[in-house]
Amino acid sequence: MTASLAPCEDLSAVSAVLAAQVRAGQRGLATASAEVRRQALKALAETLQARRTEVLEANERDLRLAADDRLAPALLDRLRLTSFKLDALQRGVEQLADQPDPVGRIRRATELDEGLVLRQVESPIGVLLVIFESRPDAVIQIGSLAIRSGNGVILKGGAEAVHTNRALIECLRAALTKAGIAAEAVAGVEGRAAATALLACDDSIDLVIPRGSGDLVRAIRASTRIPVLGHADGICHVVLDAAAEPHMAREIVVDSKCDYPSACNALETLLVHRAFLPKLAPIGEALRERGVTLRADEAARQALPSAEPATHADWTREWCALTLGVRTVDDLDAAIDHIHQYGSGHTEAIVTHDGRAADRFLTEVDAASVFVNASTRFADGYRYGLGAEVGIATGRIHARGPVGVEGLMTTRWLLRGNGHRAADYGAGGRSFTHRPLPS
Amino acid sequence: MTASLAPCEDLSAVSAVLAAQVRAGQRGLATASAEVRRQALKALAETLQARRTEVLEANERDLRLAADDRLAPALLDRLRLTSFKLDALQRGVEQLADQPDPVGRIRRATELDEGLVLRQVESPIGVLLVIFESRPDAVIQIGSLAIRSGNGVILKGGAEAVHTNRALIECLRAALTKAGIAAEAVAGVEGRAAATALLACDDSIDLVIPRGSGDLVRAIRASTRIPVLGHADGICHVVLDAAAEPHMAREIVVDSKCDYPSACNALETLLVHRAFLPKLAPIGEALRERGVTLRADEAARQALPSAEPATHADWTREWCALTLGVRTVDDLDAAIDHIHQYGSGHTEAIVTHDGRAADRFLTEVDAASVFVNASTRFADGYRYGLGAEVGIATGRIHARGPVGVEGLMTTRWLLRGNGHRAADYGAGGRSFTHRPLPS
Repeated sequence: MTASLAPCEDLSAVSAVLAAQVRAGQRGLATASAEVRRQALKALAETLQARRTEVLEANERDLRLAADDRLAPALLDRLRLTSFKLDALQRGVEQLADQPDPVGRIRRATELDEGLVLRQVESPIGVLLVIFESRPDAVIQIGSLAIRSGNGVILKGGAEAVHTNRALIECLRAALTKAGIAAEAVAGVEGRAAATALLACDDSIDLVIPRGSGDLVRAIRASTRIPVLGHADGICHVVLDAAAEPHMAREIVVDSKCDYPSACNALETLLVHRAFLPKLAPIGEALRERGVTLRADEAARQALPSAEPATHADWTREWCALTLGVRTVDDLDAAIDHIHQYGSGHTEAIVTHDGRAADRFLTEVDAASVFVNASTRFADGYRYGLGAEVGIATGRIHARGPVGVEGLMTTRWLLRGNGHRAADYGAGGRSFTHRPLPS
Repeated sequence: MTASLAPCEDLSAVSAVLAAQVRAGQRGLATASAEVRRQALKALAETLQARRTEVLEANERDLRLAADDRLAPALLDRLRLTSFKLDALQRGVEQLADQPDPVGRIRRATELDEGLVLRQVESPIGVLLVIFESRPDAVIQIGSLAIRSGNGVILKGGAEAVHTNRALIECLRAALTKAGIAAEAVAGVEGRAAATALLACDDSIDLVIPRGSGDLVRAIRASTRIPVLGHADGICHVVLDAAAEPHMAREIVVDSKCDYPSACNALETLLVHRAFLPKLAPIGEALRERGVTLRADEAARQALPSAEPATHADWTREWCALTLGVRTVDDLDAAIDHIHQYGSGHTEAIVTHDGRAADRFLTEVDAASVFVNASTRFADGYRYGLGAEVGIATGRIHARGPVGVEGLMTTRWLLRGNGHRAADYGAGGRSFTHRPLPS
């Protein structure tokens, strides 16, 4: 059941009750065995198969309404579920089912004294609020990660996908029920007012995960005290050092810019060491062949005659398109300063064969991902080998960069004693052993 | 220099500039070598020694003004620095200097493909805002942890300690200068308006660490979007299970309640399994001998004739004194429900010899620290073997429970390649090896 929060109700009160229900359901999910969570994911894959016609019909209905509303073709494309997409989702859920269960994993164990053993174990965070736009795939992607990690989840999708989302949320809840867990651990809500009310529930919701545009993320950050995991902007740079090898420079710049221009890890501004300018023309040529519009500063335009003149505002742009800013820098310090001033802390790369410049770049650049001689496009949970990806975080608290299931975990400290009293320790008393134990 | 932010200035603008200066200084501290940070801590210990007279005189001045203002004796006590306290602070700084440096520590290393190696390394969070009451010791404790971890720090103490805090902040800045690092990584501010303005700088301050009363922490949480590391309340429980051994139960209850009643990890409400009631009287007697006032429910008062009748509001109280609530529960489920309803997620303990009850308690109780047969008073960074303690966090994001230096660290992902392009991977192309490397 998708909880429908009608505007005539007291939304704040209802939202708090809903969040409390999800937490109660989550406790059942978290304290169930790893095998039960695995069974729930297996049941989810089966349910997605069994209800495929239902899900595709719901999606057809959303697509028809969206076409009537003249939704942009790119958005229609994101909204559309196909058998191919559902196959991929189902495979993802099956893979997740067979991954190791993170709940209760021991992060460290210490003997504090004879018979007094401390263990730090991984535990679910609690209740997640996922706010996403258009792509209904997110329901299954994040919902399955929540089940794997023992977290409760409230899903709020876009109005254009309402029927698809309802059908997919029902699949999640049915899978929980099949595995003998309370379906209340997963809930769906609809409408902007419900989202606003839930964002005020900082006592009962532990983490907000936005999936959508930078504007969505910024609006959410500005309107909640709940921690937000994600990123608003991906303003990534590639620095061509004086000691960059020209062929490698061209390959990395073209890949970073052209592989998927609307991705958050795509290149937005190229920073060129003045000493590299004489070797810049072939890179400009390669980009032009791929249809990239260049916006370069005065010095770089000497090497890039077809480039438009850049303005200061260009350094703050996430183009999400085949446009690239090009700025000349006098040295590595100037490149790093530019990155710290204009970058969004997402992904920064340098091309260089100077070991000292590479080391300085890796040490000094303050961003989630910092690369030497590799494309910015590698910043991705799958490519990093994290398995499923929750998102890419540019905050510095909790999780940073591509975030896997571990971003949905916190820890608890478990201590087992045999009647130990704190007063027995300290001046003249017993001493702690603090002996690390194999975890 | 303690930046003094006069109320006539535009506090928001000045605060943002100050935070930006601290971040610039912090970058120098973070990118310096581990040896330079060690030297800075050594210099801090020396400076505390060399300026001892100056610091004690500043403290005398604050104490005189506080006495004129009729500050409560407990607060005067916290405000007072002595040679003994300064010795302890100095020793703490020296020990911290010789601890391993966390900056750049490799958390995991993975080969993504031949010649493409990913490392997740620990990095400072950035700029900390520490807001503390009364105890000027916090300046050196948190300031030295910030230096060790490569973080910048803005310190805002109470008005009653203004001269002492200034003198101690000067010691921190002098130590940085001696080690050849910009003193701007550490700044002090004064006055409530400055704190309010800084709490609005969520773009330039990364983490707020409050040190003080629950009211202070609640007020800070309610007025900022910056993540807050700490706890407002410590409402801790001990559960006496049906299978609790009576002698052990007495020792743990007395230690949890009486060892240091105003500590956040002290016991506030005792939950007694109905089957244990016949064995409760000697525990009540032991508590009475230690001067504890009992406030018990109807059933428990049968065993504790001297207890006052408890009211519902007692279950929400952090007494910070020799008062203890006592409630009867029908079973373990009722005890856990009470803890989830009234606890603050700090520290929860059970006394039992029933292995299944112990396991259920450890699995099901959702709190930062969960204990079996040990006093709640063990919840402490030093006792856990974490070395220096930043604070105890009851949030679920970033750090939970007693937090050591690692709570001041985030990570960055560093990737070294040899011209690798993302477009070469995927359908029909190269595959990732995702081979774990020794870190």
